[in-house]
Amino acid sequence: MKLKEIEGIKFTDGGVCAAKGFRANGIQCGLAHSGASVTKKKNDLALIYADTECTAAAVYTTNKVKGAPILVTKEHLKNGKARAVIVNSVNANTCNADGVEKAKKMCDLAAAELGISPDDVIVASTGVIGQVLPIEPIANGMKELAEGLTYDGNTRAVEAIMTTDTMPKEIAVQFEVGGKTCTMGGMLKGSGMIHPNMATTLTFITTDAGISSELLQRALSDIVKVTLNRASVDGDTSTNDMVCVMASGTAGNKTVAHEDGDFEIFENALYAIMMNLARMMARDGEGATKLIECVVGGADTEKIAETVAKSVITSSLLKAAMFGEDANWGRILCAVGYADAEFDINNVDVRISSEKGSVEVCRNGAGVEFSEEKAKEILGEDEICIIINIGNGGHSAAAWGCDLTYDYVKINGDYRS
Amino acid sequence: MKLKEIEGIKFTDGGVCAAKGFRANGIQCGLAHSGASVTKKKNDLALIYADTECTAAAVYTTNKVKGAPILVTKEHLKNGKARAVIVNSVNANTCNADGVEKAKKMCDLAAAELGISPDDVIVASTGVIGQVLPIEPIANGMKELAEGLTYDGNTRAVEAIMTTDTMPKEIAVQFEVGGKTCTMGGMLKGSGMIHPNMATTLTFITTDAGISSELLQRALSDIVKVTLNRASVDGDTSTNDMVCVMASGTAGNKTVAHEDGDFEIFENALYAIMMNLARMMARDGEGATKLIECVVGGADTEKIAETVAKSVITSSLLKAAMFGEDANWGRILCAVGYADAEFDINNVDVRISSEKGSVEVCRNGAGVEFSEEKAKEILGEDEICIIINIGNGGHSAAAWGCDLTYDYVKINGDYRS
Repeated sequence: MKLKEIEGIKFTDGGVCAAKGFRANGIQCGLAHSGASVTKKKNDLALIYADTECTAAAVYTTNKVKGAPILVTKEHLKNGKARAVIVNSVNANTCNADGVEKAKKMCDLAAAELGISPDDVIVASTGVIGQVLPIEPIANGMKELAEGLTYDGNTRAVEAIMTTDTMPKEIAVQFEVGGKTCTMGGMLKGSGMIHPNMATTLTFITTDAGISSELLQRALSDIVKVTLNRASVDGDTSTNDMVCVMASGTAGNKTVAHEDGDFEIFENALYAIMMNLARMMARDGEGATKLIECVVGGADTEKIAETVAKSVITSSLLKAAMFGEDANWGRILCAVGYADAEFDINNVDVRISSEKGSVEVCRNGAGVEFSEEKAKEILGEDEICIIINIGNGGHSAAAWGCDLTYDYVKINGDYRS
Repeated sequence: MKLKEIEGIKFTDGGVCAAKGFRANGIQCGLAHSGASVTKKKNDLALIYADTECTAAAVYTTNKVKGAPILVTKEHLKNGKARAVIVNSVNANTCNADGVEKAKKMCDLAAAELGISPDDVIVASTGVIGQVLPIEPIANGMKELAEGLTYDGNTRAVEAIMTTDTMPKEIAVQFEVGGKTCTMGGMLKGSGMIHPNMATTLTFITTDAGISSELLQRALSDIVKVTLNRASVDGDTSTNDMVCVMASGTAGNKTVAHEDGDFEIFENALYAIMMNLARMMARDGEGATKLIECVVGGADTEKIAETVAKSVITSSLLKAAMFGEDANWGRILCAVGYADAEFDINNVDVRISSEKGSVEVCRNGAGVEFSEEKAKEILGEDEICIIINIGNGGHSAAAWGCDLTYDYVKINGDYRS
C-alpha cells in the first residue's frame, strides 16, 4: 500500500522497534477459543519493552462495555509513565467476572520477568468477548517472551496482535526536533468492530523523542480525532480499543514541553504514523478488497466535512457498490444527503478517482454524463478516492473505509469457530 | 410470517382495496434501466383510486436529497386531501433536472384519465437514482391502468411497487369506531436503503374510517416513530421514502375529530398495520434470511430503550452472527455498550428466543453458562427475538432488523445491471 507523505516527515523501516531503545517480542503461548483447539500457528502474546522509563499517553474505547485490560491500563497510566506493553490476541478478557484480576496478573507476570513495577505495564487484549481468559499459557510463556526481546522483534510482536487481520500493519518515521533526529514507529491491529468515535483498535506507538506526558496526551488526543476516529470498517465500536504512545527521550532532544514549533513537528510525525495506520486498517478491513477514501471539501466547518465523509464511507449500499465496481453515484449522493450536517445539496459535486484517473459523476446535486467504461476502469483499482465538494467553505476532511464483500459475511457469520 | 396481534384490532384479507370504495391496479408499462432491456416480467406502475375524496396525510424522507415526487406530493397534500396515488418502480426520478416536471406530468396523466384534479393525486417513485425518467411508457400505459382499476386490484398494485423485494407486503385490519365497523389496509415496499429516522420506504394505506386531516396527520406522525422508524435493513436513509394514508369516511362513523377513545382505536389500527408492515419489511430486507426483533425493557425512558434496540439491530457484526446462527452474545453486549444512551451496563441481562424456546446468555453485564446446542436450535428459526433488560425503569421499545448475508452483498454489488 502506498503511504501518504507528510511534509517534513521521512518514512523509515521498522515498527515499534524503530525508535532507539525499544525491544519487542511475540510468541505463541497457546491461547485457544473455548471448545476449539489451536489450529492456526500464529503468535498470540506480545511484549514491548523500553530500556528507560517513558512518558506515556493513551486513548480508550467509548463503549460502555470496557475490556478489563482497559480498566487496568487506565489505572497504570494515571502517572503518565510506562515502560512495557503486554498484549494478547484470541481472547478479549471482557465481560468476565475475574477479568480485572487476570489483567493485573498479566502485568504482574511481565513486571516480575522484566524487573520493573507492575504499574509501569500497559496491558491490552483482543479477541472473543465473554470467555474466561486462561492465565496459564500466559504465565508459562512469559519467561520465553521476555528472554526473546530484541531490538528487531517488532515483526514477531505485530503478528501476535493480529486477529482477522490478513497482513501485519507497521510503520515508522523520522523527524527533527531541535536539531536532533527522532524516530517514531507503530503497529496496529484491525480488522472488525472498527468504527469512528473511539480509538478504534489496538495501536502501539513508540518514540525516542522526549515530550512531557501532558503534551504527549494532548498530541495523541488531537491526532486520534483526525485519523483513527475517521476510519470505519463495520460501524461497530469495540469494547477493547486502545491506542497508546510511549516516548523515551533517548533521542536527546530538548523535551517538548510547550505548544511550539517542536510540538507541531511531533504532531506531524504522529499524524503521519496514525493516518497511514488508519488507512492500512481500512484497507485490511474484514473481507475488504479495496480502500475507500472520501475527501470532502468546501465545507463551512471541519465538523461538517467530517460528518459527510464518514456518512459516505459507512454506507452499506455504497460499500457493496464499490465491491461490485459499480459507479452507482446515486448512492454516494444519498449518503451525502442523509449526513447530519448543514449544507446545500444543490451545490454538491462528486468525483471518483484512482491511479487510473478520475471522472466527475455529479455536479450541483444532479448527475452528469460520464463514461461508464472509464468509471469501471477507475473502480477496478484497490484504492478508490471519492472527492466531494459541498460548497464554498474553507474546510475539508478525509475519512477511510472499505468495501463490503462476501468475505465480511463469511468471516463474521461464524467468527468463533 | 406470523402477524403480531393488537387488542381490539382484527386482521382481515386484502391490502389497499380492503377498505370500502378503494380500487387499485398495476401494469407493466415498460420502464427500464438505462442501457438495459426489460428482463423481469413484473408490473412497474400502480394506481390507487378512491370513489370519494379522502382526507390524506403523509410523512417523508429526512434525506436532504429528495426525489422529485416527494416535492410534488408535499405540494398536493397541503390541503390535506387526496383521491388517487400514482407510483412507479424501476426509476426513482431523483437528481434529475426535469424531475419535478415529470412527477407533475404523472399526476396530470392520472388525473386526466380519472377525471379529477391533479392536486388530488399523490405521486411516488422508487428505483435507481439519477436516471432521467422516460414519461412515454407511463403516458402510453395510463389508459389501460385506469380502465383496469378494480375493487380487488391490490395484488396487481403491490407487485408494481416491488424492487428488490422478494415478496409482496400487504395487510388489512377491521376495528369499531362509534359502533361502525371500519376497515384499513396497506401495502409497503422494501428492501434496501432502509433505515430508521424517516418514513423508511414507500407505504400506502387506505381506510374507510372518517377522520379529520389534522388528526390523520397526527396519528401517522405518531405511529411512524414507533414502527417504520424502528426498522432498519442497511442503515441507508433513502431519498424517496414516503408513507401516506387516505381516509374516505365511507364507513359512516362519526368523523374522528378529537383525541378521544375513537382516536385511540384508530391509532391502534394504524399501529397494527404499520408495525406488521415494518416487520415484513425487515424480514424481507435485501438478502435477509431472518427477522431480528430486539425488545429492550427496564429503561428510564422510551428513548433510551429505543436507542439501545436500534443499536443492536443495526450492528453489522451481530447481523452477520445471526446469519451464521452463532450465539455470539458478546456482540450483542458490544452493541448495547456503544448505544448513545444513559444506563448502567452492569445491570444488563440478555436473552435470545424464537419459536424453539429461549436462553439467557448474559446477566448483569457478564456471560452466564448456557447450552450452545439449545442456542443453535433457537437461532435456526427465521424469526429471532433478542430480549434485553437494562435496569429497573418502566419503559420499553422494540426495533426490527434482519441478518446480513452473502445475498445482501450480491444484490448491492451490482444493483443496476
